[in-house]
Amino acid sequence: MRATLMYGAGDVRVEDVRDSRIEQPTDALVRITASCICGSDLHPYGSMAAEDGPVHVGHEFVGVVEETGAEVSTLNRGDVVVAPFAFSCGACEFCRAGLQTSCVRGGFWDGLAGEGGQAEAIRVPLADGTLASLPVAEDSALMPSLLTLSDVLGTGWHAAVRGGVGPGTSVTVIGDGAVGLLAVLSAKRLGAEQIVLMGRHTARTDLGREFGATDVVTTRGEEGVTAVRDLTGGHGTHVVLEAVGHLPAYEQAYGVVRPGGTISRVGVPQYEEAPIGFGSLFAGNVTLTGGPAPTRAYVDELLPAVLGGEIEPGLVFDATTDLDGVPDGYRRMADREALKVLVRP
Amino acid sequence: MRATLMYGAGDVRVEDVRDSRIEQPTDALVRITASCICGSDLHPYGSMAAEDGPVHVGHEFVGVVEETGAEVSTLNRGDVVVAPFAFSCGACEFCRAGLQTSCVRGGFWDGLAGEGGQAEAIRVPLADGTLASLPVAEDSALMPSLLTLSDVLGTGWHAAVRGGVGPGTSVTVIGDGAVGLLAVLSAKRLGAEQIVLMGRHTARTDLGREFGATDVVTTRGEEGVTAVRDLTGGHGTHVVLEAVGHLPAYEQAYGVVRPGGTISRVGVPQYEEAPIGFGSLFAGNVTLTGGPAPTRAYVDELLPAVLGGEIEPGLVFDATTDLDGVPDGYRRMADREALKVLVRP
Repeated sequence: MRATLMYGAGDVRVEDVRDSRIEQPTDALVRITASCICGSDLHPYGSMAAEDGPVHVGHEFVGVVEETGAEVSTLNRGDVVVAPFAFSCGACEFCRAGLQTSCVRGGFWDGLAGEGGQAEAIRVPLADGTLASLPVAEDSALMPSLLTLSDVLGTGWHAAVRGGVGPGTSVTVIGDGAVGLLAVLSAKRLGAEQIVLMGRHTARTDLGREFGATDVVTTRGEEGVTAVRDLTGGHGTHVVLEAVGHLPAYEQAYGVVRPGGTISRVGVPQYEEAPIGFGSLFAGNVTLTGGPAPTRAYVDELLPAVLGGEIEPGLVFDATTDLDGVPDGYRRMADREALKVLVRP
Repeated sequence: MRATLMYGAGDVRVEDVRDSRIEQPTDALVRITASCICGSDLHPYGSMAAEDGPVHVGHEFVGVVEETGAEVSTLNRGDVVVAPFAFSCGACEFCRAGLQTSCVRGGFWDGLAGEGGQAEAIRVPLADGTLASLPVAEDSALMPSLLTLSDVLGTGWHAAVRGGVGPGTSVTVIGDGAVGLLAVLSAKRLGAEQIVLMGRHTARTDLGREFGATDVVTTRGEEGVTAVRDLTGGHGTHVVLEAVGHLPAYEQAYGVVRPGGTISRVGVPQYEEAPIGFGSLFAGNVTLTGGPAPTRAYVDELLPAVLGGEIEPGLVFDATTDLDGVPDGYRRMADREALKVLVRP
């Protein structure tokens, strides 16, 4: 079968590899019908050392179950399924609490040697807990939107939920990538009154307005902080959704959060140490929350909204390619030519 | 009048100073009947540069209103009052939201030149918003407990409330100072099922057990983290209340917090940068919250419990002195000979 491998920064190749197959009785083998490239894939694409490669890549996919292990009980050959970006047992205390990204048996796809979502097929561990069935045909026109349940919609939703967005709250969203834009959509859906989107790409911020942003701030740093404060009576917003992961985005976040407010991070931090003392979080009783979204937990809640057409998160895809086009898809996303690339293997 | 001044690290003096007096029409002049030395006073006592002194010190007090400015409407001469460690207008959007430490007109006592709580009297700005009346005589036997409404009880309570402690939660309290012990009391009162107190002073941890601690861990660092995990099924506690303020206490906090859990800090951070990336907070969706407690907001809730004898937070005072004994009180608290020193001017 064909799969995408990253050999190092800027070096992504599509190659023939050993076919994925059932290895554990709890596995399912899934033929991938739609996948995509993630903003978080751009972090290793920008910095991965060649000695750490090659690795299979891709952690968002929809597909059709081809085969199931002997202990898989809820899935059948032919089921159309979506996979969250982490696999999980569905039974441990963390899964039951809706925190599947902390499953005691689970993990992230990049921790699963020889498997990746930007490929023709994939072995899915803990299939009963991991996969969610979709009541559509594999060629459904809703597929781009359904694919966002895998990561970016659930991640934007997680940011907003953990941030405590609700009716009447004011929200700043930092980042106009797919997650940032779907954080806007999520904040709107949760009842936010004011949604300030910080981003610099007009096509993206226009989509952000379509998703519910009430204001767009194109400046950054001190200038961006001042602009948000000017829009919010001087005090900043109740909630800040940080969907980038770089330190300046975090610094921007505590610059625009209101005293007593919450910063919710879903951009994977590309830093470990950062300011959290009296001058940043403490003095204003600011809460910092967020982490890897348990997108599996949100499927039941978000799927009906997608099926019913209430939301169309698939609008974040502005390019489509087959597997051969994946390397160029990385380049286009890294160069900000494409917002998010859909892959049809 | 006599007041306590800090001249630098280890140098506290009681001196004759200019009498406090009404300066603004919103001021009240309060004769202080009970005050105390705070764990947070030990930070400058340990490190203050001589060129930054002398400064008036003390931010916790109970007293009797001697005189009120022309615009003070809710207080009268003779009222017995307790002051929170921050003064606040009571009318701005933050005060109305119960976040008086972010009052747009208010401030902390150490920002008020020439006034301090370890003194015979003090000028209280924004008196209507700041002071809470106590329905007791100035010589009430409840005075030690009522004095804790000023800071340490409200601060422990704030930690627990912001941390989301509730029925069934498991809690680790880091620090066996007055705030840590009252965080234990608060967690117990809020329904915590398991309360692990991390502290090394037997007399203090014994009081912690009296306040509700179910377990005591006397080790620190990696060893302390392992001990807490062993007590909590391997995953740590839902909530961690950090009542120290030094970086190792924060590092301990993220070592013992359960995935999806919350670290609530009320120890004033003696650091600005600290780990918050994938390896500390992010991977486990850990929430970091806390800040200066709006103790004024909690008086209405906690005062009846003190008056009714349901709680006796005044047990944290294990020494009493007059003003002359204040310098030695600092020394005794710094040397861990005393837990918390009550001052009767």
